[in-house]
Amino acid sequence: MGYPPDATLADAGEFGLIAAFVDLFPQGEQVLVGPGDDAAVLRVRNGHVVVSTDLVVEGRHFRRDWASAEDVGHRAAAQNLSDINAMGGRAHSLTVGLAAPADLPVQWALDFARGFAEECSLVGASVVGGDLTRASEIVIAVTVLGACTQAPVLRSGARPGDVLALHGRQGWAAGGLAVLGRGFRSPRALVEAYRRPEPPYDAGRVAAEAGATSMIDVSDGLLADLGHIAAASGVAVDVHTSAFDVPEPLHAVGAALGAEPISFILGGGDDHALLATYASVSDVPEGWSVIGAVGQGSGVTVDGAEYEGPTGWTHF
Amino acid sequence: MGYPPDATLADAGEFGLIAAFVDLFPQGEQVLVGPGDDAAVLRVRNGHVVVSTDLVVEGRHFRRDWASAEDVGHRAAAQNLSDINAMGGRAHSLTVGLAAPADLPVQWALDFARGFAEECSLVGASVVGGDLTRASEIVIAVTVLGACTQAPVLRSGARPGDVLALHGRQGWAAGGLAVLGRGFRSPRALVEAYRRPEPPYDAGRVAAEAGATSMIDVSDGLLADLGHIAAASGVAVDVHTSAFDVPEPLHAVGAALGAEPISFILGGGDDHALLATYASVSDVPEGWSVIGAVGQGSGVTVDGAEYEGPTGWTHF
Repeated sequence: MGYPPDATLADAGEFGLIAAFVDLFPQGEQVLVGPGDDAAVLRVRNGHVVVSTDLVVEGRHFRRDWASAEDVGHRAAAQNLSDINAMGGRAHSLTVGLAAPADLPVQWALDFARGFAEECSLVGASVVGGDLTRASEIVIAVTVLGACTQAPVLRSGARPGDVLALHGRQGWAAGGLAVLGRGFRSPRALVEAYRRPEPPYDAGRVAAEAGATSMIDVSDGLLADLGHIAAASGVAVDVHTSAFDVPEPLHAVGAALGAEPISFILGGGDDHALLATYASVSDVPEGWSVIGAVGQGSGVTVDGAEYEGPTGWTHF
Repeated sequence: MGYPPDATLADAGEFGLIAAFVDLFPQGEQVLVGPGDDAAVLRVRNGHVVVSTDLVVEGRHFRRDWASAEDVGHRAAAQNLSDINAMGGRAHSLTVGLAAPADLPVQWALDFARGFAEECSLVGASVVGGDLTRASEIVIAVTVLGACTQAPVLRSGARPGDVLALHGRQGWAAGGLAVLGRGFRSPRALVEAYRRPEPPYDAGRVAAEAGATSMIDVSDGLLADLGHIAAASGVAVDVHTSAFDVPEPLHAVGAALGAEPISFILGGGDDHALLATYASVSDVPEGWSVIGAVGQGSGVTVDGAEYEGPTGWTHF
C-alpha cells in the first residue's frame, strides 16, 4: 500500500489514510457523490430511508488479540447491516468513523477497512463517507442506510396466538467468546463464528414478504432481545427449549466449561440471527425454526417458567 | 429527570438513559419510525439523501472545563449540520452515538443531549436514532442526513475567473480557543463563539440557488479548507487580506497573545463559516463578502504570496 510495515497512523497522516481507505471502498450505482466532499449524495428509491447506528469500542466489543483487524471490520459492518435486515430491508450505504491512537499500525486500519468493505459487498452496500480522528482507544462508529421493498417489520407487531421463529446460527458466537475468555482457541467453528458472524442477510426481506408480524436481530442475547419484542408489542413470549438442536461444538464447550449448552443459545448475542413472529405456522418461511409462542401478558419465559441464567449483554 | 444529582451512567443503566434521551428529541414529520426499533425509517423527498458523519473526542475536540455539556452538544450538532449546509442542502435527521466512561454524570449526558437537540431545532432536524456504550473517554459520533432543493454544490466546481466569497463569522472560535488555551475566559464574545458556533444555516441553500460554483464550510481552517476547493477544482485561489474587517476582539487577543489578528481568520476553523466561489461578483448573494479570486494553477496564496503561518488543524 506504499506504507512501510511498521508505519503508524501518525506517520501516514489523515489525508493519506483517507485516500487509502477510499481506494478500498467501491461505490454503488446509488452514489451520486461519494467520499471526499462535505457530504455524500445518494439516490434513494421508494421514498424512504431506513437508518441505524452502532458504536464498537476496543476492549469492550473486541480485543485485538482475539480477532484480526479484518475480523473486526467484518463484525462492525455485520452488526449494522443486520439492523436493516431486522426491519425487513436491505442496506445500500454506510458511513464509518474511526477514532484511534496515533500509534495504531496503518496496516491494522487498512485491514479493518478491507474486512468492512468485504462484509458490505455481501449485500451490495457501499461505504460512502467517514471520519478519522485521534483518540486514546479505538472507537468505530458506523451508520447504515437501507431500504425496504414493503412495510418495515417493527418490534411492536407481535400478537397473542403468533408463533415465534428463529433464522440463523444462535449461540455459536457466545460459545466462541466463552472459550476465548478462558484462553482457548477451539472449537474453531465457534471462535470463527464469534470473529465473523454470518447474519442471514436475505432472511429479513423474506420474512417481511411472508407477513412477519414483528422482528429483531439477536445482538445482545436471545432472551434479552426477545424481551424488546415482548415489551414493544405488549405480549408475553414463551421459548420452547425442545425446539433447539444444540450443535455438537456447544455440547463440547458446555462440558469443558461446566455450562449448560442451551445457556449459550438463550443468553448469547453476536450471531445476529433473526427472531420474528408470524400469525400462524403456515406463514413461517423455509429456513426458519419455530421456537416458541406468543401469548397474553408480558415478559419472556422459557418452557413456561422464569429463566434463571443470564439473558444477554449489559452495556453499562 | 428523576436521577439524583450525583448519578452516573452506570447508575442509570443503558435503557433508562436511552428513554431519557428520547424524551429530549422531538420527531419531525419525516419520521415514519423513530428511535426504539432496530432502525429508524424516514420519508425522503426529491429522490436523494445527503449524508455526512463526524467524530468528536474529549480532550481533542473539546474539554469539559472549557465548555459545558450543553455547549458540547451544540457544537457536535453544528459541525454536522454545517456539512449539509456546505452542500447547499438542509439537514432533516441525525443519529448520535455516545461512548462514555461509566462514571460520567448522567446530568452531563442529559445536558449534552439537550444542547444537541436545541441546535438541531434551529434547522428543524430530528434526532432519529443513536447508540450508547461504555468507553474510557467520551467519543461522540454524529451522522446527519439532509436534502437539497437543487443540485448539490461540490468542492470541485471552481473555475479560473471565479470570485471567492465568505459568509459568517470567521476566526472568532480560533480566537476563543487561543485565550482558553492560555487560561483566560475573555474576550467573552470569542470564547462564546468557540463554545457555540453559529453556522449560517440558511446561506448554503441561498448560495446554491445563486449558482455558487463550489462550496465548503470552514471547519479545520480557512486556508486549509480552501486548499480542498483548490485541489478538487484544479485551480489556484488567492485570498485578499484587505477584504477582511478584523473584528475588535481579535485585535485585543492578538495584542494580548502577541499574534497577528489576521492569523486567527486565515488559520482558524470551528466557526463553520461558508466559503464559496461564484462565476462573477454579480452572482454573490447578500451577506457574503468577496475575499479573493480563482485563477489557473494550483494551491492557495495570500495576497499573491505563499502564506507562512499555520493554515489549519492537523488530525494526526
